Parts: sequence; C-alpha cells; structure tokens
Amino acid sequence: MAVVPLLTDQEAGADALAVFDDIRAKRQTDYVNNFWRALAHDPTTLKATWERVQAVMAPGALDPLVKELIYVAVSTANGCDYCVHSHTAAAKAKGMTPAMHGELLAVIALASQTNALATALSVPVDERFQA
Amino acid sequence: MAVVPLLTDQEAGADALAVFDDIRAKRQTDYVNNFWRALAHDPTTLKATWERVQAVMAPGALDPLVKELIYVAVSTANGCDYCVHSHTAAAKAKGMTPAMHGELLAVIALASQTNALATALSVPVDERFQA
Amino acid sequence: MAVVPLLTDQEAGADALAVFDDIRAKRQTDYVNNFWRALAHDPTTLKATWERVQAVMAPGALDPLVKELIYVAVSTANGCDYCVHSHTAAAKAKGMTPAMHGELLAVIALASQTNALATALSVPVDERFQA
Amino acid sequence: MAVVPLLTDQEAGADALAVFDDIRAKRQTDYVNNFWRALAHDPTTLKATWERVQAVMAPGALDPLVKELIYVAVSTANGCDYCVHSHTAAAKAKGMTPAMHGELLAVIALASQTNALATALSVPVDERFQA
Amino acid sequence: MAVVPLLTDQEAGADALAVFDDIRAKRQTDYVNNFWRALAHDPTTLKATWERVQAVMAPGALDPLVKELIYVAVSTANGCDYCVHSHTAAAKAKGMTPAMHGELLAVIALASQTNALATALSVPVDERFQA
Amino acid sequence: MAVVPLLTDQEAGADALAVFDDIRAKRQTDYVNNFWRALAHDPTTLKATWERVQAVMAPGALDPLVKELIYVAVSTANGCDYCVHSHTAAAKAKGMTPAMHGELLAVIALASQTNALATALSVPVDERFQA
Repeated sequence: MAVVPLLTDQEAGADALAVFDDIRAKRQTDYVNNFWRALAHDPTTLKATWERVQAVMAPGALDPLVKELIYVAVSTANGCDYCVHSHTAAAKAKGMTPAMHGELLAVIALASQTNALATALSVPVDERFQA
Repeated sequence: MAVVPLLTDQEAGADALAVFDDIRAKRQTDYVNNFWRALAHDPTTLKATWERVQAVMAPGALDPLVKELIYVAVSTANGCDYCVHSHTAAAKAKGMTPAMHGELLAVIALASQTNALATALSVPVDERFQA
Repeated sequence: MAVVPLLTDQEAGADALAVFDDIRAKRQTDYVNNFWRALAHDPTTLKATWERVQAVMAPGALDPLVKELIYVAVSTANGCDYCVHSHTAAAKAKGMTPAMHGELLAVIALASQTNALATALSVPVDERFQA
Repeated sequence: MAVVPLLTDQEAGADALAVFDDIRAKRQTDYVNNFWRALAHDPTTLKATWERVQAVMAPGALDPLVKELIYVAVSTANGCDYCVHSHTAAAKAKGMTPAMHGELLAVIALASQTNALATALSVPVDERFQA
Repeated sequence: MAVVPLLTDQEAGADALAVFDDIRAKRQTDYVNNFWRALAHDPTTLKATWERVQAVMAPGALDPLVKELIYVAVSTANGCDYCVHSHTAAAKAKGMTPAMHGELLAVIALASQTNALATALSVPVDERFQA
Repeated sequence: MAVVPLLTDQEAGADALAVFDDIRAKRQTDYVNNFWRALAHDPTTLKATWERVQAVMAPGALDPLVKELIYVAVSTANGCDYCVHSHTAAAKAKGMTPAMHGELLAVIALASQTNALATALSVPVDERFQA
C-alpha cells in the first residue's frame, strides 16, 4: 500500500544502512520499522529525521513517556494512522498503563470538542492569555 | 470578532449564570474567560462542557499538568488559536517551566513533521504495532 | 491583514466587475463581501467559484438552510475563520434560529470528539458499513 | 488493525456490557458496532460518549437526518474514515437518498475549496459578519 | 471499502459514461481510475470535477509537473491517502524523479513543522508581509 | 497576540543572537521576522529550525521558487496564517508573478475539493498507484 517500496537491508544504500544499524544499536533490537524503510529512499532525510527524533525524545524537562503521549495526541489530531500505532506502541513500551491510555484519549477527545466550539464561535483570546 | 456576543453576567440566563458561578467557585477566581461567555448562549452545551472538563482534567493516572500539555498539543494540531492561548496559560499556572514549554513545542514540531512523512509515503502499519 | 489587497469596484478589471454586478443582482444587495474582492485578482477563479456556489447552494434535494449548516460544519473542522463567520451569517439569513445554531455546534463538537477517538483507536470499519 | 482489541460481550467488563445492552435496546438491534467495542476498554469514556450521542443526536430544532449530514461533513473534513462510513450508513438509515448524498458531497467539496481560498488569501472578516 | 460501489462502464449512466469516455480519450488510456468510478453516482459532480481538473491542471504560468507537486503537498496535509497515491503517480508520469520526490517530501515535512511552531506560539504576522 | 513575547536583539541570549546574525547575513537584510523572535526563547529549536530551513530550501532538484509554492500549499492546508503570509511573501521575492499566484491558488482549491470527495467516498487506492 506504500507509495514507495520499503527497502530491505539489502536494497538500502550504504548511508541508509548505517542509519538502520544505528537504530538497531540505540534501540537494542533487530527490528527496523517500516517508517525508516520507507524513508530510506532519501538517506539525507532519513538521517536528519532519526537524529532529530533522538535529540527531541531524549529525557529532559519532560520525561520520555510524557513526550510519547504528546506524540500520540498530535498524530491523532493530524490523522496519521501509522504514527498513532507506532507511538502508542512506544508509549506502552515506556510504561503507559491502560488507565493512562484511557485518560490520554479522554483529553484528546475533550480538546477536539472544545477546539471545534472555540473555532465555530471564533472566541476572541482573553487579554490575560496574551504575552 | 466573535460569531456571537460574549454574555456578561447580566446578560446570561439563570442556567448559564449558575455555571459561571461554579467556574468561579471551583477555580477560586472572579474571572470567567471568554470561551464560557460565548458558550452561554446554549446553557445545555455550556453545562455539559464544563462538567466534562472537570471530570477529564482532574488528577488521575496522568497528572493535571501532563493533561494540559496534551491539550496544547491537540489544540496546536487543530489550529485553534484560542485554545492554544488558554491551555498554554493553564499549563503555566500548573507549573510548566520555559524548558518544559520548549520541549513540548519540539515534540509537537517533530510529530507534525513525521506525521507528514508517514502520510506522504503511506507507510503500512507494522504487524507488531497492531492489536 | 489580507495576503492581497481587496479590490474595490474601481480597481477590479471588467471581468471581475461583471461578477461583482452579478453577485449584487442575484443577492439583491449593494454589498460585495471581502471574499469576492480578494478573489478578484484572478477573474477566472472568481467566476468559476461564484458559478459553482450558485449551482451547489441552490434548492434541491436538500434545502438551502441545511446546506449552510453543512458549510459551517466543514468550515469549522477546516479552521477557516472567515468562512465560519460568513456562512453562519448566511445561515441566519436563511432562518437558522439560536436553538438550531446551538444544536449545530453540539453536533460539530460531538463529531470532533468521536472522530478523534475513532482515529486514536484506529477502529476498523464494520463490514456492514461498506459498499 | 485496531490499536486495541475490540472487546466481545464476553471480554467486556460489567460496566461496558451494560452500555452494550443499552445500545442494543435503544437501537433495537443485536449489533454493537466496532467503535463501542474499541471504547469498551475505558467504560467511563464509553458511557459518557454513548450518553452524549443520545442527547445530541435526538430530534430537536434540527431533525436527526440533518444532524447525520452534519456529522458526515465534520468527519470528512477531519479525515475520519471510520466515522464517514458509520455516519453515512446512519444517514441512509434515517432517509438520506442518493440525491441528498450527492448534494451533501457537493457542499462539502465546495466548502473545502472556498475554505482553502479564504485561508490562502487570509481574507479579513467583514464587519457585518461579526457579532 | 468504499462508501459507495465503484461503477463499471455497464453500471454507469449515459452521462457518467460520456465522462469516462472523455477521460480515456484525453488521457489516451483505457483506464478510468477509482475516483471517477466512485463519483459516477452523481454525474453532475463527476462532470464538473473532471472539467475543473482539466482547466486547472493544464499548462499555464506553472507547468503541469509543478502543479502535481502542489497537489501532492495539499493532499498530504489534508491526509487524503487516495489523493497522495494518485497524484504521486501522476507526478512521476510527468517527470518527477526520485530526487525531486525526496525534496518535495522534505519541504512538506519542514512546512508541517514550522506551521506547528508558528501556531503553537501564535506568532503575529509581520507588517511587511501584509497587503 | 503571541503566546510568548517576541525577543528583541537586546532580550535574546547569545545563542539566539548568533542565529539572528546569521539570518541577517545569509539573507542580506537587517530584518529578522517575528517567527524567529518567537522561537528565540528556545535557542536549540531556533538553531535547528534555521539550519533545516537552509538545507531544505536551497536549490536542488527543485528550484527555490517551486519549494516556496509547495510551502504555501502546505501552510494553507494546515491553516497557518503566519506561514501563508511569510511564504507568499518569500515566493514573490523569488519571482512568483500574479498569474503564478492565481494558478497556485487554483490548484490548492481543486486539491482541497477532490481530497474531500475522495475521503467522503473512501475511494480505495487503485492497484496501479501502489508501490
């Protein structure tokens, strides 16, 4: 169903394969998921994306699980089915419990609802909310 | 700029005013923000929305600050300017530091980028990400 | 704030002015709203859009008010502030009461919420819903 | 393909099963569609959503068929494939004819087009459209 | 999976078949793709859409390949899987190389990212960018 | 109206100021637009974004003007008013004529329309469009 073939290790060029190997090493797994295999047609974007993922998703002021929850929220609002699946899986791997998943969905649903209401009414921003 | 006038306490009906009073009591403030004043034209939706906000945003498996971060993320992806302002303000009130804000934005930006790539390539969902 | 200047009758070319005149005649008003004045930089798109609006929004199997409600719903989901304003005004002009407006918003809000839930869970389409 | 397994009656907890039974009773059918079976992992959201659906979609100032048309319009703009299917089916069950379906699609398409034009030109809202 | 059956030549009415024949003649192919076969339930929209496609996508100030790239960009941002596939195929047929495809995706990804940042920060438009 | 204050050169930290200076040097202008001044609260994202913009928007298989047209298309579909303004201005600076602008808008409008139709009908992807 993909727009481009997913590249196997054998089909990927040397630059792409180096990223695949880095993904395997950093994640301590043999598995490289489809997103990276589709991106491998353009090693420059593949590498830039993988580096950005590592930099942004690392522990910082927010912990990695919270970052995954935010990722799922954005992916849902953007309607990206692949990303909803992959980042829900990542969130589970980082400790998201069913109760947390349920609350995540409830917040996403509530926000979607009030976003629509505020937009349909074109509510002006309160002065106190502005910088 | 609003599609409907924002109702003052004087203009709001008894049902809407009761919700305004509850907002003030629960939030321990005199201020009722524009979103509720716009919704006040339809007291049923006003009341249902306010009750849902309280139920969903209460502490649970996720803490209220994390819920606000998720709310900002959804509001950004949905392009709701009002909601971005009000929930960024709410997140700050609940303890979001500038560093946390910066990381929130970085995750939102990264997710938006990879959402677009996965969609443009129609990457098929890996079997292991499916239930 | 516009990306292009809004053209006055004096600034518009002959082709655009002919469309302005047709809008005034068909709507029995002196007023040409900003959308058309912005489109007037490209008379071909101006004319094609105005003709399509007339063809699609005319009475048919659905009455014109219902069509305006649908228009507001789409404009809200797409986050088009201009269109939310202009088509809410058009719906009012065609008979939308405050109660109908309230129900319109309630349906939009509910749909936005369940859209998000179905997407976040990637619910597979039931066989019976497929053609 | 779902992010979570769809719960059968046997797998659903007592709270979720009570909602399933209510859906069957109110809709006079044996069938509970996938959306509710996916939501059943979180009985609180399941119950709140089902109750909201009943309240919002009931006959009122707008008739149920018009509400379904609006639902399809929002679901299309939000790109929710599941919701497009389920609410198009619901609209048909409530009397949507092929001609009405055709006009619904024509309005959605027209609105999507003019939404994009208004956004690309950032057309300022006419004073007369503001509250 | 479609919401309506795709009409074969035999099932299509005379008006729809005339459009199918025109598509085959203009594109010099025997193949009519699924989009048109789904639209064929409403010959008026089918005809209007096909005519608009021909008028808009013809060579002009922008060449046809550039127009296809823009089409893919919009379709990606709108999350239309069908359109991403069909217009990526059309772009390839008009000369899009893998390098061009890679750059197209990189621009789409970058824009999606900065769109999100500008929205999350509600950056005010610089005076010099306004008409 | 911004969510955060726009930082002047005096308010920006050394890291952010270095990016401002680089923007001025590379663009041969004294002007740093609001987007960068808003991002300056987080010098890491500011720097990463500016570097990515330079890498992606440079001449390559696609010329810089075409890249700006694609940027405007994505920004429109995502409803980013700031980005529509800034990248329409950038496109003009790189040679976009009014005729090209008109055709850009016509393609965006057409794509938005057919995206909606394909989504509302859930048209299955033709086998020949798949990798």
